[in-house]
Amino acid sequence: MKNFTYFNPTKIFFGRGQIENIKKEIPPSSNVLFVYGGGSIKKNGLYDQVVSELKGFNFYEFSGIEPNPTYEYTMKAVELIRIKNIDFLLAVGGGSVIDATKFMSVAAGYKGEDPWDIIIKKLPVEKTIPLGTILTLPATGSEMNSASVITRSSTNDKLGFVRAQMYPQFSILDPTFTMSLPSKYIANGVADAFTHVMEQYLTYPVNSPIQDRFAEGILLTLIEEGPKALSNSQDYDVRANIMWSTTTALNGWIGLGVPQDWSTHMIGHELTALFDLDHAESLAVILPSVMNWNRKLKSEKLIQFGRRVWGIKENSNDLVIDTAIQKTQEFFSSLGLKTRLKEYGITNEDLAQVVEKLKEHGMIALGEHRNIDLEASQKILQYAL
Amino acid sequence: MKNFTYFNPTKIFFGRGQIENIKKEIPPSSNVLFVYGGGSIKKNGLYDQVVSELKGFNFYEFSGIEPNPTYEYTMKAVELIRIKNIDFLLAVGGGSVIDATKFMSVAAGYKGEDPWDIIIKKLPVEKTIPLGTILTLPATGSEMNSASVITRSSTNDKLGFVRAQMYPQFSILDPTFTMSLPSKYIANGVADAFTHVMEQYLTYPVNSPIQDRFAEGILLTLIEEGPKALSNSQDYDVRANIMWSTTTALNGWIGLGVPQDWSTHMIGHELTALFDLDHAESLAVILPSVMNWNRKLKSEKLIQFGRRVWGIKENSNDLVIDTAIQKTQEFFSSLGLKTRLKEYGITNEDLAQVVEKLKEHGMIALGEHRNIDLEASQKILQYAL
Repeated sequence: MKNFTYFNPTKIFFGRGQIENIKKEIPPSSNVLFVYGGGSIKKNGLYDQVVSELKGFNFYEFSGIEPNPTYEYTMKAVELIRIKNIDFLLAVGGGSVIDATKFMSVAAGYKGEDPWDIIIKKLPVEKTIPLGTILTLPATGSEMNSASVITRSSTNDKLGFVRAQMYPQFSILDPTFTMSLPSKYIANGVADAFTHVMEQYLTYPVNSPIQDRFAEGILLTLIEEGPKALSNSQDYDVRANIMWSTTTALNGWIGLGVPQDWSTHMIGHELTALFDLDHAESLAVILPSVMNWNRKLKSEKLIQFGRRVWGIKENSNDLVIDTAIQKTQEFFSSLGLKTRLKEYGITNEDLAQVVEKLKEHGMIALGEHRNIDLEASQKILQYAL
Repeated sequence: MKNFTYFNPTKIFFGRGQIENIKKEIPPSSNVLFVYGGGSIKKNGLYDQVVSELKGFNFYEFSGIEPNPTYEYTMKAVELIRIKNIDFLLAVGGGSVIDATKFMSVAAGYKGEDPWDIIIKKLPVEKTIPLGTILTLPATGSEMNSASVITRSSTNDKLGFVRAQMYPQFSILDPTFTMSLPSKYIANGVADAFTHVMEQYLTYPVNSPIQDRFAEGILLTLIEEGPKALSNSQDYDVRANIMWSTTTALNGWIGLGVPQDWSTHMIGHELTALFDLDHAESLAVILPSVMNWNRKLKSEKLIQFGRRVWGIKENSNDLVIDTAIQKTQEFFSSLGLKTRLKEYGITNEDLAQVVEKLKEHGMIALGEHRNIDLEASQKILQYAL
């Protein structure tokens, strides 16, 4: 395995009733900003619970964060944070709410003109506002990592950034909070986490058996539990396993000392920004196509994936790889996700603008071998039509 | 799975050359105590490297920590820490050096009469001295957890204790530092880590597929890489995989939300204290016996272990369990470890004093079901003769 540095200070409270810990974890006499999305937490009772737990704190609310959270909207919160002297951020929601809150955390203390520069100019972060999260949507892993993805809607730019200061101080993972989710969200979350694992696992071997088996363990669990979660929203154990799978898929553990790909995410981000596909929808279309396009360089891990995760017994390596890609597509389909661009009405003529955006964002050498140039991205998109 | 809280702030620097990070991680102008064991780090060059990296710090040395570190000897370091106003502890060694340093960390600031009370009276810890580690012996996982085991030699008491303040601030894991180890130490480390996994895995099912598969992944890796490490000390990848296996076996990840056993360790500690068996030697004798004695209550996990880890295909569950226990014993034997007490000259007549010590230490209800009373411990010891 390759050299690595690991540090992840997020405290996790997992299980029923863990929300009560926020009282102990938020420093006393904090000015808290309670950040959330739409009205779902008001319908399922979580809003009231949070308000009750925040008794004794001086707190403000900022709601309306939408999927693929925008720079423009998040900056309104930054303004509020500055006016109200907020010193703790509590994100209640899924990856979008958490990602937006992470951006608030670094943007509010930024002294330059425009905090967007932190992302595009890759500036180091100085003053940040600590944050905690209450996760309601198992998917992105943002509750236990230091990454965030923000969209600038005026320019259709969807960009990720990572800063060590963005680890949440704590995250509450209570599987019961996911029971009222529409099944579409669970399907998306499972596909997202599955792809997170694949981006860190399906590259080339570097003799990392621990990381490989952890990754395969998460994939197998998502394959087993995903369909159960869709057919029964009230099974606590299933929801718990989905939740812990999605967190461990992107909390750093499986990615230590191994090459990483992330081309599916980079191409997928452009599809989301341009054509409004859900994040997971873009991944379900692009991942199988990347697997196929890069099948030679990924062959050893593709075979390992086929044999260990899908239990494929064929002797022919090519057949194992074909079957593994097909099984992956079938898995996404079984979750109700489309795996072809044309099913979204995207045609060959639309691809040029995707490639143009990749170029604009400097995505000209993607994948673990940096061999996915713009021409290759075009081919990957064509395979996915 | 059960509710859990997870927090592990230790920063890991893994791989060749990572030692250079200690300069950045130890606060400038610290008074450092450099703690180590015998002379092995002087022979293999690590001592000189550490001294070179500590240039610019005011540092003192404390050496001579032995396996199963004693309260008596460690207290000499505590005295030195107080006299010299030490404010950072750097442990360079294996679990014994790190465990001793953890005890120094909490004992030096203790205001009562005797810091041994922290362990036996389970006192909360107040002031601690931060510590970092450079691991030379992959085995105990102490480099990335908050536990320590200390022996009071005057009374033959070997006792463990856990305090959140005892997480190392950082640990340097460079596999090349393990290449000069005698193979006996590698064998012991592999057996120790294998047992750490089993104590957290081989209990009863609570529907925790992620934790189970992570645990199985570590066991499979130890089984594959252990013999390779014994036959070739210079294979970097093998040493790296052993090192990361032993750390992940006891850094908390596989034990989240699952029942835990630890009876093998508790009984084993008494054998070490009374008859001077190595820690790993005591485990290799007792673990198979616990598996056998508790085979009914552990049956589901024993079968899962047999099938997934050892690939046993038999239909009869009893046969799977018998074979799984036998394979475990054979694995320990293949590492050169004895699996019978009589091979150490311990006879039936010696067992009464072991049971007496268990009683003295309150070990009267061991295991994940608390069903191992003193009579059961006696039986487990008898099976192990």
